[in-house]
Amino acid sequence: MSALSPALIEALYDRFGDRFSTSQPLREQHGRGESHHIAAIPDAIVFAENTEDVAETVRLCAAEGVPVVAFGAGTSLEGHLSAVRGGVSIDLSRMSQIVRISAEDLDCTVEAGVTREQLNAHLRDMGLFFPIDPGANASIGGMASTRASGTNAVRYGTMRENVLSLTVVLPSGQIIRTGGRARKSSAGYDLTRLFVGSEGTLGIITEVTLRLYGIPETTSAALCSFENVEQAVAAAIAVVQLGIPVARMELMDRGLIEAVNAYSNLSLKIEDTLAFEFHGSPASVQEQVEMVAGIVGDNGGKDFEWANTPEERNRLWKARHNAFYAVVSQRANAKGWSSDVCVPVSQLSACILDTRELLRSCSVPAAILGHVGDGNYHVVFAVDPTSQAELDEVAAINKKMVEYAISVDGTSTGEHGVGTGKIKYLRQEHGDAVDLMAVIKNAIDPKGIMNPGKILPNDVSPAV
Amino acid sequence: MSALSPALIEALYDRFGDRFSTSQPLREQHGRGESHHIAAIPDAIVFAENTEDVAETVRLCAAEGVPVVAFGAGTSLEGHLSAVRGGVSIDLSRMSQIVRISAEDLDCTVEAGVTREQLNAHLRDMGLFFPIDPGANASIGGMASTRASGTNAVRYGTMRENVLSLTVVLPSGQIIRTGGRARKSSAGYDLTRLFVGSEGTLGIITEVTLRLYGIPETTSAALCSFENVEQAVAAAIAVVQLGIPVARMELMDRGLIEAVNAYSNLSLKIEDTLAFEFHGSPASVQEQVEMVAGIVGDNGGKDFEWANTPEERNRLWKARHNAFYAVVSQRANAKGWSSDVCVPVSQLSACILDTRELLRSCSVPAAILGHVGDGNYHVVFAVDPTSQAELDEVAAINKKMVEYAISVDGTSTGEHGVGTGKIKYLRQEHGDAVDLMAVIKNAIDPKGIMNPGKILPNDVSPAV
Repeated sequence: MSALSPALIEALYDRFGDRFSTSQPLREQHGRGESHHIAAIPDAIVFAENTEDVAETVRLCAAEGVPVVAFGAGTSLEGHLSAVRGGVSIDLSRMSQIVRISAEDLDCTVEAGVTREQLNAHLRDMGLFFPIDPGANASIGGMASTRASGTNAVRYGTMRENVLSLTVVLPSGQIIRTGGRARKSSAGYDLTRLFVGSEGTLGIITEVTLRLYGIPETTSAALCSFENVEQAVAAAIAVVQLGIPVARMELMDRGLIEAVNAYSNLSLKIEDTLAFEFHGSPASVQEQVEMVAGIVGDNGGKDFEWANTPEERNRLWKARHNAFYAVVSQRANAKGWSSDVCVPVSQLSACILDTRELLRSCSVPAAILGHVGDGNYHVVFAVDPTSQAELDEVAAINKKMVEYAISVDGTSTGEHGVGTGKIKYLRQEHGDAVDLMAVIKNAIDPKGIMNPGKILPNDVSPAV
Repeated sequence: MSALSPALIEALYDRFGDRFSTSQPLREQHGRGESHHIAAIPDAIVFAENTEDVAETVRLCAAEGVPVVAFGAGTSLEGHLSAVRGGVSIDLSRMSQIVRISAEDLDCTVEAGVTREQLNAHLRDMGLFFPIDPGANASIGGMASTRASGTNAVRYGTMRENVLSLTVVLPSGQIIRTGGRARKSSAGYDLTRLFVGSEGTLGIITEVTLRLYGIPETTSAALCSFENVEQAVAAAIAVVQLGIPVARMELMDRGLIEAVNAYSNLSLKIEDTLAFEFHGSPASVQEQVEMVAGIVGDNGGKDFEWANTPEERNRLWKARHNAFYAVVSQRANAKGWSSDVCVPVSQLSACILDTRELLRSCSVPAAILGHVGDGNYHVVFAVDPTSQAELDEVAAINKKMVEYAISVDGTSTGEHGVGTGKIKYLRQEHGDAVDLMAVIKNAIDPKGIMNPGKILPNDVSPAV
């Protein structure tokens, strides 16, 4: 029995035919991401094929006050897909057209369901790439919605910096475009940045215009192992402070290397490690490598181990990208819980060491990894979702990590988003600014139908 | 006679003493920026010394529905300071404290009245600098409010990318902070970016946390002259498309060079010119110079003329920064009218050539200049503000420039803001998204007291 009214079901079926579904397996699949968060299943699914499909679904749902939740690739880590008040999941995965590419302007427009791997496969022959890389093969719309970033952000920025404009369906069903294709503009409120990171709570992103980059003339990657995490982090901080334009600088602790070796059939040295990638002209890459080698040496790092061929590099980064799955797969029937904080770089070492202390007595398998160039790090826990004791234990560690990060003027989430998982920290982080977020939410979505129960806590004023 | 109620005047005087003024000369000074826009003078001025002063002024004014207009350095070019509905101008120029600097984190927090030159003078001995440079010695708060950028944006981005967080006084007088100091965050709506570029219409920015950069090891600047603007622009576009990380790449047409020579007592060659600055390590600068020299040569450019010493470089950029004043000073009693559009780089050449055609028959002295690496260019007109015929003539050219820019998916203003000057183009550029801006404006400032008559046109729904 669906909670949707017969009239709404009929209207959606009339409009979408077999692209509308209330099947239980589909509903279950659409009510959760990849993490430990408990699924709340939607009442129905619409498979949208274009912006007008999304707009029409939103219009029909809005007329009855029924919630809508956008679904891209299902890789959310903070419960964004959970239909906590039921409603319709709008699946955008069939909106996978690359609408236009301009090599001259280094930009493109894609439908929201295009995944980053799909986009990069398409761009490769043009000598272009899109650098934002959260690991998972997420959809571009989902990445915009959570303000995602990942391994290349230290050099290329996050979705915040790389989205030029959006097409958005508003809660009324109205379709707007948030900007043009100029690299900069002072023409009015920055609606693009308002929707980037709004997690489907203000509207549904259906098309995204992105900045692109030329594939660097030279790419070079290396691993460097350290006696301990402290040294590795110290080296990473020095690289940032000297402004060396490394493309990637990733921390993997020894626990993670073990998991990655097992999962990806590799034989990386089981030590606390920094993984680097350098982009540029041959001379520039050479110069970066020499500067970083000097810093690494000063901080007790061992010699670089080079991933020289594209195949070796791909294997290395694929292994890194699969870190989440690698940790989770260490245990049968485990679910992943990935914490995510970001702090000013000067605080990073103290934060990570504090986290290591917390992990010493933790009974749940866990590993530390991080985009340390940005001050962003994660702990991935392989948790038994049926054990309340384990969930409580991880929640307590997560809470301490988040509160430490906030106490040093950092953030409760660097790139995963708030979803349902970080709601409880939002006021601690933002104070009364949370109420201003609620004012905006209420003004744009007065019926509260857009992905309800995400981002904003219940104690906001005015209530949402 | 002030339009303020005796009770409000008394309350402001009680609170601020001689930091409250209704003097006619002060009011006239505060009702206009540096451009041709007609002044509308405020009823009174408050000289704020801290955030709480601003909050208290806003609270007192809000209680009576009296408008407030923030004033920084008075360098606005689009009528932002015009008190079109009267009210109180809040002068932030005494809020000139540099609150904190972290060399480790490459960030700082400053009060809104700090100017960019003041900040850079302070940072120099620490080996740091703040790159955003709109030419005028604007206040950091004003630069954030208009989403300013300028000559370094092609490499370092605009205020959008370089503001980490803000302290803002809301229309209620409430004080919020829009974020922390982490380099990236996915924790809720991007309030920082909402206030950046909102021109005082949603709240008043009182403190700004900024990204900083290390002063480059090597800085090198050169001029290159071309047969015509078309060649110069073609060279600039090629530099952008190859991703060469030039720090500055400025177009100055021959008319501008003439004006600049006269104003700054220089003897630059009177030709259509690109001015470059290169930042980096010695090897990286050498490489950039060689690549750019090749491109310039391919596009008919002549040999680089180097500004080798810091003094020569400073003289060059100071001359460039004074371009606006140089053009205006060509004529006694003239006012400057600076148009400002930004387009995708692939469209830049056609746009600038079209503008040159428009200028051929123009009776008002004018020169073209531009941050061509971003697709952003200006025409500065030295207009007689008492001649309606001249104002109409320039307005017609400005309109054609803006409409051309919008037609190629560019923007009506790359960096000067909307103010009163670009309101009429906002709907043409943004379509129905303008109504969403009005929804946000109404929700945050329901009494409409924050810098009324700016950004939003009268035809929005709901009305503001």
